[in-house]
Amino acid sequence: MLITTLTVKGMSCEHCVKAVEGSVGKLTGVSSVKVHLNEGKADVNYAPEKVSLEEIIETIDEQGYEAAE
Amino acid sequence: MLITTLTVKGMSCEHCVKAVEGSVGKLTGVSSVKVHLNEGKADVNYAPEKVSLEEIIETIDEQGYEAAE
Repeated sequence: MLITTLTVKGMSCEHCVKAVEGSVGKLTGVSSVKVHLNEGKADVNYAPEKVSLEEIIETIDEQGYEAAE
Repeated sequence: MLITTLTVKGMSCEHCVKAVEGSVGKLTGVSSVKVHLNEGKADVNYAPEKVSLEEIIETIDEQGYEAAE
């Protein structure tokens, strides 16, 4: 397991938090995800042999936000 | 049918728009509702004999926003 903090731009409310946490949390290999709305960050706990950071970032971007390492 | 424009404070993204439009749109007596996010307004088309403006405002407030005539 790795824990990475991503920067996520564009989140403005609790619905956005749920959109990010819900979509990333559903990915195989992600064991937990916690968004910090005020800081525009997301802590992701994942198994790199099962899911790549690129996939996680892409999943967030598909929800309409802009994630980066 | 009456058309009223309400002021709605606290909406910040498209999820908020859906929360307001979805909840108000489900009320009996409301035939349409259109949120204008940038202006913080919601146009509601409703039958006053079936639903009161107070009920509509309360429904929006329950979603976490602040509506007013």
